[in-house]
Amino acid sequence: MAVYKIAVLKGDGIGPEIVNSALRVLKRLGELSGVSFEFEEGLIGGIAIDQKGEPLPQETLELCLKADAVLLGAVGGPKWDNLPTSKRPEKGLLQIRKALDLYANLRPAKVYEPLISASPLKEEVARGTDFIVIRELTGDVYYGEPRGIFIENGKRVGINTMKYTEDEIRRVVKKAFEVALKRRKKLTSVDKSNVLEVSGLWRDIVEEEKKNYPDVEVEHLYVDNCAMQIVRRPSSFDVIVTGNIFGDILSDEAAVITGSLGMLPSASLGEKYALYEPVHGSAPDIAGKGIANPIATILSTAMMLRYSFNLERLASAIERAVELTLQKGYRTPDIYSEGCIKVGTEQMTDAIINSL
Amino acid sequence: MAVYKIAVLKGDGIGPEIVNSALRVLKRLGELSGVSFEFEEGLIGGIAIDQKGEPLPQETLELCLKADAVLLGAVGGPKWDNLPTSKRPEKGLLQIRKALDLYANLRPAKVYEPLISASPLKEEVARGTDFIVIRELTGDVYYGEPRGIFIENGKRVGINTMKYTEDEIRRVVKKAFEVALKRRKKLTSVDKSNVLEVSGLWRDIVEEEKKNYPDVEVEHLYVDNCAMQIVRRPSSFDVIVTGNIFGDILSDEAAVITGSLGMLPSASLGEKYALYEPVHGSAPDIAGKGIANPIATILSTAMMLRYSFNLERLASAIERAVELTLQKGYRTPDIYSEGCIKVGTEQMTDAIINSL
Ligand SMILES: CC(C)[C@H](C(=O)O)[C@@H](O)C(=O)O
Ligand SMILES: CC(C)[C@H](C(=O)O)[C@@H](O)C(=O)O
Repeated sequence: MAVYKIAVLKGDGIGPEIVNSALRVLKRLGELSGVSFEFEEGLIGGIAIDQKGEPLPQETLELCLKADAVLLGAVGGPKWDNLPTSKRPEKGLLQIRKALDLYANLRPAKVYEPLISASPLKEEVARGTDFIVIRELTGDVYYGEPRGIFIENGKRVGINTMKYTEDEIRRVVKKAFEVALKRRKKLTSVDKSNVLEVSGLWRDIVEEEKKNYPDVEVEHLYVDNCAMQIVRRPSSFDVIVTGNIFGDILSDEAAVITGSLGMLPSASLGEKYALYEPVHGSAPDIAGKGIANPIATILSTAMMLRYSFNLERLASAIERAVELTLQKGYRTPDIYSEGCIKVGTEQMTDAIINSL
Repeated sequence: MAVYKIAVLKGDGIGPEIVNSALRVLKRLGELSGVSFEFEEGLIGGIAIDQKGEPLPQETLELCLKADAVLLGAVGGPKWDNLPTSKRPEKGLLQIRKALDLYANLRPAKVYEPLISASPLKEEVARGTDFIVIRELTGDVYYGEPRGIFIENGKRVGINTMKYTEDEIRRVVKKAFEVALKRRKKLTSVDKSNVLEVSGLWRDIVEEEKKNYPDVEVEHLYVDNCAMQIVRRPSSFDVIVTGNIFGDILSDEAAVITGSLGMLPSASLGEKYALYEPVHGSAPDIAGKGIANPIATILSTAMMLRYSFNLERLASAIERAVELTLQKGYRTPDIYSEGCIKVGTEQMTDAIINSL
């Protein structure tokens, strides 16, 4: 019998609650299907700073390197907000992405018909939205050197470096073409090549790779224009591929128009490793109250089953259970609307497990 | 009698049509009020490349340096899209911003109640939205050195540099506090200080300056979060201040949620010079058809009267004439909805002049 080893990093805020929910779903799915999952926990983020003095302790990293996949909750909170950039919980996230070489971050933005009224967009604009933002995750201004605060002529100067090599661009662009091939075969590449040389290189590589994927229709958008089109015609997108910082901004914008941030999973993929986490953050304001929406994390495990373990049938089973549960009317407070059944984290998890 | 000298740069696409409309409004306003405007034209953008071989000819720059203010239409179009980054029409825009030291770009995002149905947002989300994005315009990754495509180990590498000095940050932040003081006294500063050192410096300067403006309430948002909140709670913003690239993205996002890009003016201000232009681009697809919406450019002249000439009464006169014209039901195709009177550029301009 196959045994899948999952490194579990619950992190901060609502992280532990929502990850526990996801683990319950996985366990039950294992019982039903005869697949076996093994969980081993590690510390990351603020709790790791508190207990080990650093946001990504060496033992956590080793745990992840040995696992078949990583499940992450969320990191950060007001307690650690005044630490310098290099010592914050978020640094743990940036370090693990780099250490596992997780260069392709997949963030689906999907409007669920039963939740469409929660979208800030008009229903006729939001309806049918179903795209994926593929964000490069290990390069760009996030990691470029030189970086820091320097003194020039007695004044402070802040410097970061936006940098991409052609290989870094090519591998994530190829990944995006491949994902597009399995979907509606439309790829939107986003850059700022009318101003930035690094974006010019990005666009050149997309044009080069296009020849290898003749079935995929390619569109180029400037990042400012894309920020407009995501609001204006979200249902026209299939796959969007872009760099780390533009992807950070656009994927959050894409998330919010669905009206259900608490529903959105993500996968961060490299050649050898993969990490799965909800798109939303650690939500310290509702941590410990038992009301966090576990669906994003549960759907992240579905992505894990699909992309890391190639268990497409089980992945779909989770996704169908979630849709069924929504159809039955169950809602955590973040997605609640009148006439539905308001439930907490545990009850939502029970309902999903019952729908499996 | 006061004479105001305006450098007029019509540019490409719909630029000439919409600028002509704005000049007609200004002329009529001059006749009515006894103020006199003098217009002198210069080339910029694609047409300047075609006629003079460069996007910002020296004589255009000199014209602007001598004028009391600059009115710009729009630059760019498919004809010049395959030129290298450094030779494109857009380069003329970047050069003039830098040469006139126009460090503060003010972009109002206002939802006009008669046009609210054109917003992609639900009416209850869009209603009451009225904020200004103040975007730093002469620094950041737009201008930072080193920049270019280099070869490392036989491979191409794209590099741009995100850079701000404390003085560059301080002057635009001060401007933003001052604008906030004249409005609802709420300032949102946007950065990515959980990752970028240059953003850390930005946030430090905002905190330092806050002490000089105790009446202004200050909020810090990360850029990804701000991209969400603009869609989710646009009416909660008053003044947003941010760097050049984040401002490029967020101000376009802010523009689109109003549902009336063709209505939005902008001002780019320095200590000595100022330039006014519509937020929308050159719209080559509708150029020469006589259907472009001239309102954004007309409202840009209102900003000119207010910020450069201190003619508040005349500025308001234009703004009121525009609102009145909308109330009367006149609409260019981009903002048309059933039951309104569909008009072209000229008729819209006539209607506004009649409402003055
Ligand atoms: C917390 C932060 C460092 C992180 C990022 O910017 O990548 C987050 O916003 C995300 O998108 O995962
Ligand atoms: C055309 C382009 C160079 C320009 C910019 O990025 O500044 C435009 O998008 C704008 O916002 O004025």
